[in-house]
Amino acid sequence: MSEDYRSMWKSLGLDLEAHDVLLGVLGKAYQDIYLSQKNRPEGMGYFDFVMSEVHGLRIRELLDEKKSGRKIIGSYCVFVPEEIVLAANATLVGLCSGADFATEEVEKLLPRNTCALIKSSFGFKLGKVCPYLECADMIVGENTCDGKKKAYESLGGLVKNLYVMDLPQVKSKEGRALLKAEYDRFRDAVETLTGVSITAASLKRAIRTVNAKRAAVHRLSALRRADPAPLSGLDALLVNQVYFYDNPVRFTESVNKICDELERRVTEKKGAFPEKTPRILLSGCPQAVPNWKIPFIVETSGAVIVGEESCVGERGARNLTKDSGETVEEMMEAIADRYFQVDCAIFTPNPERLNHIREMAAAYGADGVIHYGLQFCQPYLMESIPVEKALEEKGIPCLRIETDYSLEDAGQIKTRVEAFIEQIKG
Amino acid sequence: MSEDYRSMWKSLGLDLEAHDVLLGVLGKAYQDIYLSQKNRPEGMGYFDFVMSEVHGLRIRELLDEKKSGRKIIGSYCVFVPEEIVLAANATLVGLCSGADFATEEVEKLLPRNTCALIKSSFGFKLGKVCPYLECADMIVGENTCDGKKKAYESLGGLVKNLYVMDLPQVKSKEGRALLKAEYDRFRDAVETLTGVSITAASLKRAIRTVNAKRAAVHRLSALRRADPAPLSGLDALLVNQVYFYDNPVRFTESVNKICDELERRVTEKKGAFPEKTPRILLSGCPQAVPNWKIPFIVETSGAVIVGEESCVGERGARNLTKDSGETVEEMMEAIADRYFQVDCAIFTPNPERLNHIREMAAAYGADGVIHYGLQFCQPYLMESIPVEKALEEKGIPCLRIETDYSLEDAGQIKTRVEAFIEQIKG
Repeated sequence: MSEDYRSMWKSLGLDLEAHDVLLGVLGKAYQDIYLSQKNRPEGMGYFDFVMSEVHGLRIRELLDEKKSGRKIIGSYCVFVPEEIVLAANATLVGLCSGADFATEEVEKLLPRNTCALIKSSFGFKLGKVCPYLECADMIVGENTCDGKKKAYESLGGLVKNLYVMDLPQVKSKEGRALLKAEYDRFRDAVETLTGVSITAASLKRAIRTVNAKRAAVHRLSALRRADPAPLSGLDALLVNQVYFYDNPVRFTESVNKICDELERRVTEKKGAFPEKTPRILLSGCPQAVPNWKIPFIVETSGAVIVGEESCVGERGARNLTKDSGETVEEMMEAIADRYFQVDCAIFTPNPERLNHIREMAAAYGADGVIHYGLQFCQPYLMESIPVEKALEEKGIPCLRIETDYSLEDAGQIKTRVEAFIEQIKG
Repeated sequence: MSEDYRSMWKSLGLDLEAHDVLLGVLGKAYQDIYLSQKNRPEGMGYFDFVMSEVHGLRIRELLDEKKSGRKIIGSYCVFVPEEIVLAANATLVGLCSGADFATEEVEKLLPRNTCALIKSSFGFKLGKVCPYLECADMIVGENTCDGKKKAYESLGGLVKNLYVMDLPQVKSKEGRALLKAEYDRFRDAVETLTGVSITAASLKRAIRTVNAKRAAVHRLSALRRADPAPLSGLDALLVNQVYFYDNPVRFTESVNKICDELERRVTEKKGAFPEKTPRILLSGCPQAVPNWKIPFIVETSGAVIVGEESCVGERGARNLTKDSGETVEEMMEAIADRYFQVDCAIFTPNPERLNHIREMAAAYGADGVIHYGLQFCQPYLMESIPVEKALEEKGIPCLRIETDYSLEDAGQIKTRVEAFIEQIKG
């Protein structure tokens, strides 16, 4: 890393020594997990570059944006509407939460029985290793699960400018009204932060920018229906992860570019894995960088992942926002409509998610579903039991995995995944 | 038990053999924990009788009510307004959830990492040992914590007539509106169930009945400020537990009767324990019958519990409902106002609870606070860390205990409690 970056990180208040350790581990994992893959499309070169510069060039860009007066808003959840942020001439970035860090410090503030994702978000703060968090002008929490909602009460004491968004638990008329009211309140807060008034024109432009990004990942997803799958699940997950970090316009171009290449691969029947490789749909909790554990196990055990029913995947990116509104209010309604369709397990009941898993399994020709639940994530773990039952009743094999970010159980999970793949082949 | 009861239980579909086991364990525990106490007020005789007949005479009464056309509504939470139920000429009862039962069956439907209270509610159903559940015409679930909210999705398949009430997570204008809308929806559902239209007169009468019940337990609580405390924490907890089962008018009379006796004891300086016994405020998760584990440990370790900051205690029963409204709508607003003050940890932020703990500690002259958290109860476990910190900053010693319904850790907890009592004595 250049000295330039070191002084940049220092100026952000990072713990350079700890950050070096993190980058070392990240680089090694990326080499072992990503760069060791065979038959990768050339277009993944862009995403490899992005990952190699995820704490470097991208942070430099964000700091340059800040210098020019643009605000940076950090988020932990797909319920935070990027449309509103972009329309106020600000930038939305996902915040780090895919690895254990500073666990001992974290467990002074959070119960040990807290999911790894939440602990990780605290660990990156307490360990001073997340440049995104440190350069954000506003950090948005949201009342999704109990774990996050109560953890933000403590996070508020650790960061400047935490903004908490309330969310409904039921898809009722009142629930929809709450979401809309909260998005209006968020719009006001973003306007106050940026000093920029959102106009119909800027909001429409923002909606189209975000829709283009979503349409690009939809195009990518659709190409994975082919057999052989033209892209590994690991690479597809990476694209879905970079979705949260990258400049949206450049990201969209890069995804469309790899899609052009994947279209040729599909025509040529060139796959990341051979034809008739058992196909897995991964469903459940989000996988943030560098949480690549389950796809790595699956794709080194003789199967290919063809879809992610996850916030970092199709649950987060499906459905465009209607862009036909003429007033800010009409478009705010369209935004609320779009996000109210997200079938997160925090909603009760949540039958749309089961339907969506079934649809995805059919669309992507999955031979089985692996349900990925983070330990202590009550909403997804609770939902996984009826989901498994309903899928198996429809003849779709399902394997439920409950794990965390450690690698201690990797051998045990691999054994179970291998047995599951044998089962679906048979 | 009389043969009469056996045929009653059989008619309710209970598993008589399993139910015998439960009653045997319950009777033994009651003997060991309650009847072995010294210096009990005579007025506890009533509550001993109620407990001895908790699955007998009280169920017979409920069945008699049903025969006369009255409906029985079961609930798991203090957010279900008894005022509305009584006003529609129905009876509200708390449902069983204080002991492990049928755990193997339960864990086919719920993750192992689910709190004991939720598991217990499933266990009593799956084990067919809860006559309250079996005689209820409507069972009310509520979206409090993630665990309960998602568990009700499965419970709906096990019981007839599950009604789920949504609840807010934030004490905002929108949160208040949601609570009010949900109470209106509940009133409609209760009216439909009973065929009784709630009138201003019936609602006012119901509010006064429930207020009288609350006022009686407030009176009881206030008497525990004395040193020596005239009543043990175990006995006070029992009164707070019976609150949820008993006929409200008879309960009120019985509580006021024991209060008359306790007033005399206070004047005579006659205590359940000697003067200057270390005084503990118990704060945290609710303790349902027969979950007497922590108070039993505390009160056999040299301290007396002088207050319960809990749903089965002051959090559930404090604050009366304003009864001055003249219309149903005015009184429905008053009901929403009253319940919106409940400082359950599902709310974020929840500063009222910390204030209330501090107030209680001062009012009851507590020397320390024991925070009781059920394992995997994310809201209370999350909140316990800042609560402990804030209390200790104010010089109030605090011990956090995380446990479940098993007795495996009883020895370990006793050791910690004894050390804590030594600390606060010193």
